[in-house]
Amino acid sequence: MANPKPNTAGSLEGIRVIDLTRVISGPFCTQMLGDHGAEVIKIEPPERGDIVRSQGNMVEGFSWYFAQFNRNKRSLTLDLRRDEGKAILHRLLEGADVLVENFRPGVMAKMGLGDATLRERYPRLVVGRINGFGSTGPYRDRPAYDFIAQAMSGFMGVNGPADGEPMRAAPPISDMVASQNLAFGICAALVRRERSGQGEIVETALTNGLIGMMGYLAAEFFATDRVPARTGNDHPMLYPYGLFRASDGEVAIAPSNDIMVERFLGALDMLHLLDDERFCDNARRMANREPLREILTRVTEQRRVDQWIEHLNRAGVPCGRVHDLRETFDDPQVQAQQMKIELDQGAYGRIPTTGFPVKMSEAPAAVHRPVPQLGEHTQEILRELGVDEGALEALRANGVI
Amino acid sequence: MANPKPNTAGSLEGIRVIDLTRVISGPFCTQMLGDHGAEVIKIEPPERGDIVRSQGNMVEGFSWYFAQFNRNKRSLTLDLRRDEGKAILHRLLEGADVLVENFRPGVMAKMGLGDATLRERYPRLVVGRINGFGSTGPYRDRPAYDFIAQAMSGFMGVNGPADGEPMRAAPPISDMVASQNLAFGICAALVRRERSGQGEIVETALTNGLIGMMGYLAAEFFATDRVPARTGNDHPMLYPYGLFRASDGEVAIAPSNDIMVERFLGALDMLHLLDDERFCDNARRMANREPLREILTRVTEQRRVDQWIEHLNRAGVPCGRVHDLRETFDDPQVQAQQMKIELDQGAYGRIPTTGFPVKMSEAPAAVHRPVPQLGEHTQEILRELGVDEGALEALRANGVI
Repeated sequence: MANPKPNTAGSLEGIRVIDLTRVISGPFCTQMLGDHGAEVIKIEPPERGDIVRSQGNMVEGFSWYFAQFNRNKRSLTLDLRRDEGKAILHRLLEGADVLVENFRPGVMAKMGLGDATLRERYPRLVVGRINGFGSTGPYRDRPAYDFIAQAMSGFMGVNGPADGEPMRAAPPISDMVASQNLAFGICAALVRRERSGQGEIVETALTNGLIGMMGYLAAEFFATDRVPARTGNDHPMLYPYGLFRASDGEVAIAPSNDIMVERFLGALDMLHLLDDERFCDNARRMANREPLREILTRVTEQRRVDQWIEHLNRAGVPCGRVHDLRETFDDPQVQAQQMKIELDQGAYGRIPTTGFPVKMSEAPAAVHRPVPQLGEHTQEILRELGVDEGALEALRANGVI
Repeated sequence: MANPKPNTAGSLEGIRVIDLTRVISGPFCTQMLGDHGAEVIKIEPPERGDIVRSQGNMVEGFSWYFAQFNRNKRSLTLDLRRDEGKAILHRLLEGADVLVENFRPGVMAKMGLGDATLRERYPRLVVGRINGFGSTGPYRDRPAYDFIAQAMSGFMGVNGPADGEPMRAAPPISDMVASQNLAFGICAALVRRERSGQGEIVETALTNGLIGMMGYLAAEFFATDRVPARTGNDHPMLYPYGLFRASDGEVAIAPSNDIMVERFLGALDMLHLLDDERFCDNARRMANREPLREILTRVTEQRRVDQWIEHLNRAGVPCGRVHDLRETFDDPQVQAQQMKIELDQGAYGRIPTTGFPVKMSEAPAAVHRPVPQLGEHTQEILRELGVDEGALEALRANGVI
């Protein structure tokens, strides 16, 4: 499926989310909820708002980095250090289904929003929470950033060349994974609430999320008691597999079993290599990886990347170009899947951003709202709460909103 | 939260999932559903079952790689190429809430389970689907593997050292991310079904999922029209930040703003560097990254990693050790968060596996069932469907189960 035409507001239509999060983890989660139809009210401190509003490349004063994580939300400014601000938050929570926060453990309690209070006052509320290390344990109070989570989860340690240093992934992968975990957990809690009527606290942590992604590498470590070695782009257990040099760049080729290796070598007109005792089975190909790489590269470097991709795909060998981001977003498949979309940001024009990876047949994700200006919906939301003009004026004069 | 004692079967209690998936993407998704209480019936071809059962390191004939993705499921063998097998699948679907599959596009239709059929016969069913590139577009039929998705999504292209080749992440990150997206989408569809009574087809693709993770790097590309450069472990816009050599290893240090840089340099007793015109602001520190790295390393290499971590955390500077997987699972915080758990596999003993990254206060994730042997629950499940002994015997004799 690409994104079919929406005929509803999305699967989460009618779910109201109060969003206290900022930066990446948290905002990415609430954006997923908003993409799928939830009504998200992003609460930001007056004056500066979410710090990401002033980070990354600004186009005419508008951060495209902020845009990447904050479509499908309304913005309400509110000083939560002030009693009047807290009172408004509580009025919002009375009508909310979900509250999401990514403060350090303890901050919510200091604001009078500890778990016990939330559960008592709002028994149907689903509370979603992201932090660095979890809210219990010896590191609960440590400051956490993606780079640290990548290091401590073991993720960085398995990535990178065999002869080089551990290597981070450039995207803040622990933030993104935690956001995905939280979006899942929040929806699972909503499924339960439909039946039980009871809310729930859902928590996930940057480090825990990445540990959960270690998958077969964790299994191999548990089974062998040996720490997995870094192998760069080479597969730890299969060869040929990896990047191969073509005349104008590199091709990623991933024959994952003997049948595909045969297809690959057949497509290279090199099937005779399977009769060579150095290369006749996977174990021997692993032992003689470097000579085999050299032989194969002498063939692959004779044609262009696009030629190999067409030829190998026709032979049923998984392969692809190593795209830079321009090539990714120019790719006809990526376009067919609408993985680049545009937000209509009024005076700022149309702003590109990444599309929706979760496609739904009946109530698809959609851009229900562009990215809000700071406090753009403050007045609208407070009026919905029944705050009258005089009270609004007083809140504004006192710097609460 | 760590994992509190379960007082229910999990948030997804009462949700019945029919699982046609194999390998990683798909099984990881249905395991997430099972961890949180869904009843998962894994349908496997008779004889060999899911190919991962015979992959990875085997301990006494039992694959710990398979265990990593298949707890909390029952196993039913069924030959879906046979009419009798299909008939049983349809009887299961009548009582199911969710069907999950990760075949190549078109395979389900060939099995008589195309979208139109599923929607007509099972209007309340949520169908979850993972494939490589999406089920529309020019590459829909291409074979897809994680390595190819990492290459084509642009993910590999932004990872790796500035002077080296694009670098994959070692875990099959596109499979894992797609599974997370699908678990979220399935639960969102269930939330909607509670209100609308209508099922939904939910689809996600390896490549689309990773494109969705490109986050601020995509935003930077869109804003500048320049492809982000690979910067290894260095932050593209901040310094100091990254790996620093201690006397016995490396420390990851991530001061993300000027205040934290001041704390970091203060903790090193190097605050005077901020008076040096080469290093007085972030732009100049970026321009003089190499001389500054050298100066700082001369300090950091004088103490051990654990000393720096204690010292810097006390100063409020985000930092951590680059763990290998042994260090990760030995870490007291990881243990406090129960991110390594054990499955009681009967004759195979207790098998370690990764824990639950999504913590729930009321209905937490738990090991409801260990990893099933191939076909372990075939008889039990068919009896639940009302298949009598004679029919069971005939199915077995004919190789359908």
